[in-house]
Amino acid sequence: MRIGVCYFPEHWPADRMETDVERMAEAGLRYVRMGEFAWSKLEPEPGEYEFGWLDRAVELVDDYGMKAVLCTPTAAPPKWLVDEHPEILQEEADGTTRHYGGRRHYCYNSEVFRRETRRIVGTLAERYADHPAVAGWQTDNEYGCHGTLRCYCDDCASAFRTWLREKYGDAETLNERWGNAFWSQDLNDLSQVDPPRHAAADHHPSRLLDYRRFSSDGVVAYNRLQTETLREANDDWFVTHNFMSHDGLNAYDVAEDLDFASWDSYPTGHVQERRGPVTEEQFRAGDPDNLGLDHDLYRCAADGAHWVMEQQPGDINWPPYSPQPAEGAMRLWAHYATAHGAGVVSYFRWRRCRTGQEQYHSGLLAADGTPDAGYRDAANAASDLETLREAAESDEGDEVGEGASAPTGDVALLHDYDNLWALEIEPMTPEFDYWDHAETYYAALRARSVGVDVVPSSADLTAYDAVVAPTLYLADDELAARLEEYVADGGELLVTMRSGVKDPYDTLHGAPRPGPLRGLVGADVDQHESVPESLASDVVCGGDRYEARVWNEWLAPADGGASVEGRYEGGRADGTPAVVRNAVGDGSATYVGTWPDADLAGAVVGDLLDRAGVPTTDPLPPQVRIANRGGLTWVANFGADPFAVDAPGDAEWVVGGPTVAPYDVAVTDAAPSDLSAEERP
Amino acid sequence: MRIGVCYFPEHWPADRMETDVERMAEAGLRYVRMGEFAWSKLEPEPGEYEFGWLDRAVELVDDYGMKAVLCTPTAAPPKWLVDEHPEILQEEADGTTRHYGGRRHYCYNSEVFRRETRRIVGTLAERYADHPAVAGWQTDNEYGCHGTLRCYCDDCASAFRTWLREKYGDAETLNERWGNAFWSQDLNDLSQVDPPRHAAADHHPSRLLDYRRFSSDGVVAYNRLQTETLREANDDWFVTHNFMSHDGLNAYDVAEDLDFASWDSYPTGHVQERRGPVTEEQFRAGDPDNLGLDHDLYRCAADGAHWVMEQQPGDINWPPYSPQPAEGAMRLWAHYATAHGAGVVSYFRWRRCRTGQEQYHSGLLAADGTPDAGYRDAANAASDLETLREAAESDEGDEVGEGASAPTGDVALLHDYDNLWALEIEPMTPEFDYWDHAETYYAALRARSVGVDVVPSSADLTAYDAVVAPTLYLADDELAARLEEYVADGGELLVTMRSGVKDPYDTLHGAPRPGPLRGLVGADVDQHESVPESLASDVVCGGDRYEARVWNEWLAPADGGASVEGRYEGGRADGTPAVVRNAVGDGSATYVGTWPDADLAGAVVGDLLDRAGVPTTDPLPPQVRIANRGGLTWVANFGADPFAVDAPGDAEWVVGGPTVAPYDVAVTDAAPSDLSAEERP
Amino acid sequence: MRIGVCYFPEHWPADRMETDVERMAEAGLRYVRMGEFAWSKLEPEPGEYEFGWLDRAVELVDDYGMKAVLCTPTAAPPKWLVDEHPEILQEEADGTTRHYGGRRHYCYNSEVFRRETRRIVGTLAERYADHPAVAGWQTDNEYGCHGTLRCYCDDCASAFRTWLREKYGDAETLNERWGNAFWSQDLNDLSQVDPPRHAAADHHPSRLLDYRRFSSDGVVAYNRLQTETLREANDDWFVTHNFMSHDGLNAYDVAEDLDFASWDSYPTGHVQERRGPVTEEQFRAGDPDNLGLDHDLYRCAADGAHWVMEQQPGDINWPPYSPQPAEGAMRLWAHYATAHGAGVVSYFRWRRCRTGQEQYHSGLLAADGTPDAGYRDAANAASDLETLREAAESDEGDEVGEGASAPTGDVALLHDYDNLWALEIEPMTPEFDYWDHAETYYAALRARSVGVDVVPSSADLTAYDAVVAPTLYLADDELAARLEEYVADGGELLVTMRSGVKDPYDTLHGAPRPGPLRGLVGADVDQHESVPESLASDVVCGGDRYEARVWNEWLAPADGGASVEGRYEGGRADGTPAVVRNAVGDGSATYVGTWPDADLAGAVVGDLLDRAGVPTTDPLPPQVRIANRGGLTWVANFGADPFAVDAPGDAEWVVGGPTVAPYDVAVTDAAPSDLSAEERP
Repeated sequence: MRIGVCYFPEHWPADRMETDVERMAEAGLRYVRMGEFAWSKLEPEPGEYEFGWLDRAVELVDDYGMKAVLCTPTAAPPKWLVDEHPEILQEEADGTTRHYGGRRHYCYNSEVFRRETRRIVGTLAERYADHPAVAGWQTDNEYGCHGTLRCYCDDCASAFRTWLREKYGDAETLNERWGNAFWSQDLNDLSQVDPPRHAAADHHPSRLLDYRRFSSDGVVAYNRLQTETLREANDDWFVTHNFMSHDGLNAYDVAEDLDFASWDSYPTGHVQERRGPVTEEQFRAGDPDNLGLDHDLYRCAADGAHWVMEQQPGDINWPPYSPQPAEGAMRLWAHYATAHGAGVVSYFRWRRCRTGQEQYHSGLLAADGTPDAGYRDAANAASDLETLREAAESDEGDEVGEGASAPTGDVALLHDYDNLWALEIEPMTPEFDYWDHAETYYAALRARSVGVDVVPSSADLTAYDAVVAPTLYLADDELAARLEEYVADGGELLVTMRSGVKDPYDTLHGAPRPGPLRGLVGADVDQHESVPESLASDVVCGGDRYEARVWNEWLAPADGGASVEGRYEGGRADGTPAVVRNAVGDGSATYVGTWPDADLAGAVVGDLLDRAGVPTTDPLPPQVRIANRGGLTWVANFGADPFAVDAPGDAEWVVGGPTVAPYDVAVTDAAPSDLSAEERP
Repeated sequence: MRIGVCYFPEHWPADRMETDVERMAEAGLRYVRMGEFAWSKLEPEPGEYEFGWLDRAVELVDDYGMKAVLCTPTAAPPKWLVDEHPEILQEEADGTTRHYGGRRHYCYNSEVFRRETRRIVGTLAERYADHPAVAGWQTDNEYGCHGTLRCYCDDCASAFRTWLREKYGDAETLNERWGNAFWSQDLNDLSQVDPPRHAAADHHPSRLLDYRRFSSDGVVAYNRLQTETLREANDDWFVTHNFMSHDGLNAYDVAEDLDFASWDSYPTGHVQERRGPVTEEQFRAGDPDNLGLDHDLYRCAADGAHWVMEQQPGDINWPPYSPQPAEGAMRLWAHYATAHGAGVVSYFRWRRCRTGQEQYHSGLLAADGTPDAGYRDAANAASDLETLREAAESDEGDEVGEGASAPTGDVALLHDYDNLWALEIEPMTPEFDYWDHAETYYAALRARSVGVDVVPSSADLTAYDAVVAPTLYLADDELAARLEEYVADGGELLVTMRSGVKDPYDTLHGAPRPGPLRGLVGADVDQHESVPESLASDVVCGGDRYEARVWNEWLAPADGGASVEGRYEGGRADGTPAVVRNAVGDGSATYVGTWPDADLAGAVVGDLLDRAGVPTTDPLPPQVRIANRGGLTWVANFGADPFAVDAPGDAEWVVGGPTVAPYDVAVTDAAPSDLSAEERP
Repeated sequence: MRIGVCYFPEHWPADRMETDVERMAEAGLRYVRMGEFAWSKLEPEPGEYEFGWLDRAVELVDDYGMKAVLCTPTAAPPKWLVDEHPEILQEEADGTTRHYGGRRHYCYNSEVFRRETRRIVGTLAERYADHPAVAGWQTDNEYGCHGTLRCYCDDCASAFRTWLREKYGDAETLNERWGNAFWSQDLNDLSQVDPPRHAAADHHPSRLLDYRRFSSDGVVAYNRLQTETLREANDDWFVTHNFMSHDGLNAYDVAEDLDFASWDSYPTGHVQERRGPVTEEQFRAGDPDNLGLDHDLYRCAADGAHWVMEQQPGDINWPPYSPQPAEGAMRLWAHYATAHGAGVVSYFRWRRCRTGQEQYHSGLLAADGTPDAGYRDAANAASDLETLREAAESDEGDEVGEGASAPTGDVALLHDYDNLWALEIEPMTPEFDYWDHAETYYAALRARSVGVDVVPSSADLTAYDAVVAPTLYLADDELAARLEEYVADGGELLVTMRSGVKDPYDTLHGAPRPGPLRGLVGADVDQHESVPESLASDVVCGGDRYEARVWNEWLAPADGGASVEGRYEGGRADGTPAVVRNAVGDGSATYVGTWPDADLAGAVVGDLLDRAGVPTTDPLPPQVRIANRGGLTWVANFGADPFAVDAPGDAEWVVGGPTVAPYDVAVTDAAPSDLSAEERP
């Protein structure tokens, strides 16, 4: 529970450095991230290093009682390196080179660039291996940003063939697994495989899925090269990476090589990347569930701790619109991250930069060096966190990750990147989105103040009272058996539309859907359809009427199988089961065959939590969320209206009080389920 | 009047084959199309053929009393061939290669690929030349699909120059015909001509039009290579090709080398490709006129017979939305195709494939091998057709094409691909669409239950009581003379906006529009304009007010020429003639100078049919259509409400009865013009 | 005050030429522009010239008492030249060649093409150097049309490095000025710089801005090559260039080498290029301020004279929609251009061409050679101008430019291409547009019948009573000092949002915004934000409520600095100053911190003009404008309703009268400020 900041001393005159560091300490900041993108300042000429400025910055950070987090500078190789080795540049699927000029202009699978990476990272690691103020490292920056996750160059072609050889052994096996009889795609040898470059017709989905796996694995291997190099120099400092908001890189795989995961949180930007209208409150402060999903995903990516490595400090440069955040929003976000288990919240960045691509991105200081709105919020957050650290049940020191007390969720939300990728490849309607669909269920859980872990389906589920598994698209018998065991042992499982559709090779099961999950679900999917708004129908569930959206499955319960919980009403599927539930052993599995509106998701999830005995609050309005960590409970108000809480008489308010002002936060020692919205007279 | 199916035995375990074929026979299917895209299974290694699986499939089809239709596998050349000859790949206009990975990855003008085509087609043709169960062949698959009609590679450049030499002889002639004085485009030699590759400014329209002609001719020549090779082996089997819904390949030219044309009918997909909103009924069953236009086009492409080679079997994978078709829709479509002259309706495909790009495309069987909705509809259709074959006036045997009794239309709708292409090159407003405009008139004819032949303007028109010619854009004196003769002999001709604008080289006539048609039309086009919705005006015609859309021409009748039938009212052209009619000999020519709404098109077409003495019904609602073939009359209801028909007392109902349920069909021996919508009390 | 026409004798049979020229003279035309795009007719084979047809055309023009304007034919190099030197073709940022096929297929920085240019231009200039009928030359045609202003080829790469060397000297200086520490972009040598080719992430804005400057400079140098070559042959004829409507080429720089600037005016097309809805009146006649801005910009680009080299003659081919212009619009445009100082209005083109890319572009004659609507309007305009020339105060002869009496504005509107470019690079919201924003203020001035000069900020401002400076984005101390001096001397200055943000290297000032303008404005910009429509707020100013749009700045007046004129009301910035004014010496500077709606812009501008003592009319409706030149005052009605004027009793009407019909014009000797809209009873 600490506040930090991202600092670029190399952007400013040397004589300003001590002033900056001094002010950071005054604001209560504890971690200073440095060195990102600094390759041309660290190695101005090939093999000629200049560490002086960074040495001095680390010293100053130490002098003022803070810790340094250093970055490997590989996200922005200097021009001299690109000119020497133009083959490190990535290529688009149509063969166009992604040229030098911005950042991320290298291919993860380039052997040349991996060699250069080992050299610069190793040199830096050696330099700072013994420095006590260096707490740890961030590898690179935002792998995959700007659409660079997948590259189509010859190095990738070669690496893909190697990857396929390791996975399939020979062409015959690959032909069989992918089903290459279709459209005459049988291969004679794995050397014939190319990246899925520009073609007139769609590529084979199995190839596309494996190319996504391969591309993600390429990042994992590249990152491992960095983590290994860093740990060779010093095995004590931590190594992390700053992921972006939920996207297409397999964070679980990358995080296996990290001490903890970090992510870069820009609430008013991320909310503009979702489909649908954005409310004024969301433009001003973001959406709490959109943020919460990321916190819960990245917290679970490594061992129960995560950082926000970059926290939005004010207005930003990259979304379509850049409204000013609400008054106090930058403090609210720090609290909200902390409540979700963040060890450190590090604002990006210390001062608005006068040059380059991000001049329209604010900092805690304005370009003129004076405090901006973010500075006040960051200092307030730092002060609050000091109070909270004392109030928290668990003992927290200046330990690595600063997140020993990171919470564990009551409920697991299953998320597999394979499912994301396969559904991106075959969305089958312009209105389907994997993440938006998952957020529907995440929001239903969080509206009831339940702690959520976002974990892969391979995770140990025994500790969870309930499991929600949106679009468990690729499924095999092994997964089905594990889930059946979970339910039979008393677990409550929610499975949704588009589950059990395919095997891990992205080919249909020979059995009716949901394939291996049929027995567990106790019903088949008879038909599916994607529908535009004009063909919307309703679902009636528990006597209430809800809206079915985007995708409808017509369910057929097996004899003696599932009971019908909800049916389509009106339209083509009138009367057909849409929601079913199947008792298995001591638990049950619920299947929702459409994309429910928020109310239907809430009703189904509410019933699930009741059956599972998970303590909840009554449903909160979407802009208010309650979260618990280390015995403390945060009430976060992302809305423009005050929110008043009814708490037990003995509840103590550590921060704020029971009436939470707009865009404000309060922290109490009462449990979430003891709180409720105050009834207005 | 038969039902068939598309079957891919190579996608399934060998031990399933007999079960599949047996079930096909049980369902009443009579034709089984096989071998499409099977190159890698037929020739797994260069020169090493494996025919065993196909031999066995043909045998089984024979054993169960059905006929096989085989496909040449050229639409999907195997990777070993592409690797050996990467120059067979197509190129985009910007030089990007259209890589291997999907299908249609070859250039029609590649000499290498033509050589390989002759080899594989010849080998297959020899293999099955003497097999009695092989009724005929489908060449390739859907020429031009995925935007592959035009390629810009060096082979095309060379072939285009040859094509131009044959057409123009020398650069001087080409300069003159194209009008290359414009923008300094005079050529010194035809070797200087390139394909119209990416350029900053628009290419010369005459070059673009000739490139479209050349590209279409390339397909014609490529297809002819296949038909000749097939007929060299056996001159008795039929050869056809499965075209797509109306598009940009000259089907008339290709069909000159075919015994009959086929097309691939996906009603709920095609309807989503048109402009404007799609109704729920159309999402569920397609639009009957959108389908009918294709039936009438492809029936006329060769000698009065056509097949539906691929009929939608349920939900499909490629449109934006994939709603489940209406209950019974797959049977309705088979009837509707038959009523329009289809010899065989062949469902695509037997079973949903578990692998590859079309897993979201249903089959008559589900992926698990059990019957799906399409199976029931197909079996019902097969049973119905047996009944109808007995009731039909004409004698139909198991003859080639199965369509000896294909109907002939009362009215000709003229359609020239040159006009389509030239108007695609210069639409002059984002809202113009050649096919949509033609459909306006086609729908007006079909709402009155008139049989329509869609024929080129070069067709013999003497048998038609009336001729409708939408956008007769390129016109010369010879065409004008033929049409004048037709009208003078008593024909009733309807000509529309954007007629007589250019000569066949896509250059303006020196005379006022409609150029060579001025005398026939008896009026000039004084001005034209394209207008957005906000500048819409009305047309008053026969005392009624209608809407004029998209394109307005201001007509000026010649002295003693045309009479004014309708005028613009309101707006810039207030009072100006919009519709005129000119008596010539025993007939008359009507000219409509705007894109009429459905009511105006109906009024003009209704008058035309009255004058021509064509028997009609009262206008039907858009979702109900009546069609006649071989003495039988189909009442097809593409709507969600029942449709009740008043028929003569002695009318016999061969299928269904006078009240046609939603998405159902009825067949009677009464003539169309004896039927009418029942008046609701 | 003359009418001319663009003529392409090479498009027509030689025996038509004299008929055409004779008819031009009959219509009262005085200038005939010829030779544009005629390279393939002038030099059909390399080095073999054919001047006969042009010699004859010039002779005929002379014979019929008119003057010839010749064009250099470089905008369309012939294919033989492209084949000989394919390296002259431009390249897209992604490396795609911009191929031959349209026009403008050459790179301005190609040394080869510059050599060929000097040859063909020199040969032509020599040929006609002594011909008395040749009044002058147009260089090339519409530099930058079709997105060809910027090219990314290797010639450009090399030229860019040279340009940078001249500007910065060495890499160290460039690193410092651009701020290349950001994202590791320090360069070791200027030879490392490439054009900003396709990259995954954004390019550095300073590089992008310099590439825009460099690209514009490339055109300037290329044009200078032409002007010098022409003047070497004859120093007496004029040299001009026909610019397009306001775009991204620095017209001030190009015009330094011209005798006067020309532009090509297509009112119904330009108005469709702006954002937002287009009214029917605008579809029919364009927007008078959209046109006026161009007249006032290009009139000021060289020394107080300009031509409309191409005036829309009727329907045109390139906008989305091509409605017929209003009756008389082509005459209205000629008058409106003349009122704004045009010396000659030359219609494009004599006759609709039968071939090539512009067949859908009308001419004064139809394709059949008969007069079209434009012919009548042009002849009427020619006749009117004869009357006006006699009535005008100043004496005008057949002098070069024909515009000796071009008016000078009362107010300067400052426009710098550097600001346009920098804001195009970083618009920071999809709804910002530099030109649209400037037009908001231009319209406010012109609604009050004030004459406006559109001049760069480097212009001498002493003669102007008021100066309006929209988005003075890049500003340095020198500019600030000049403006302060202007205001201190009694000038009234209006500065807007997004001013003083950056220095000329496109990097932020170290001081708060508006940076160097802080003292002048007397306030700081505390925050800025871009807002979508859903976050709109109001501004209250002088007791009236207005709408704030797109961009809001929160102003903070300095102690003893600016007074608050308007505040935001409602929303995030409620109560914050939005408009301030600062008295400096004898004048004052007003700062508007948002994009005002038309009413707020009008209120602020109206107050400014009042303080400056500029005579105005009451605000006119947007479709009516009043302009003065040479003692004559035009009342131009671009609307569909008549407009009635109250004029002094002794006012004489030289053309028309006090009630101006729709799309008509009247000219009086009364001063603008003596006119007013007639009150309807």
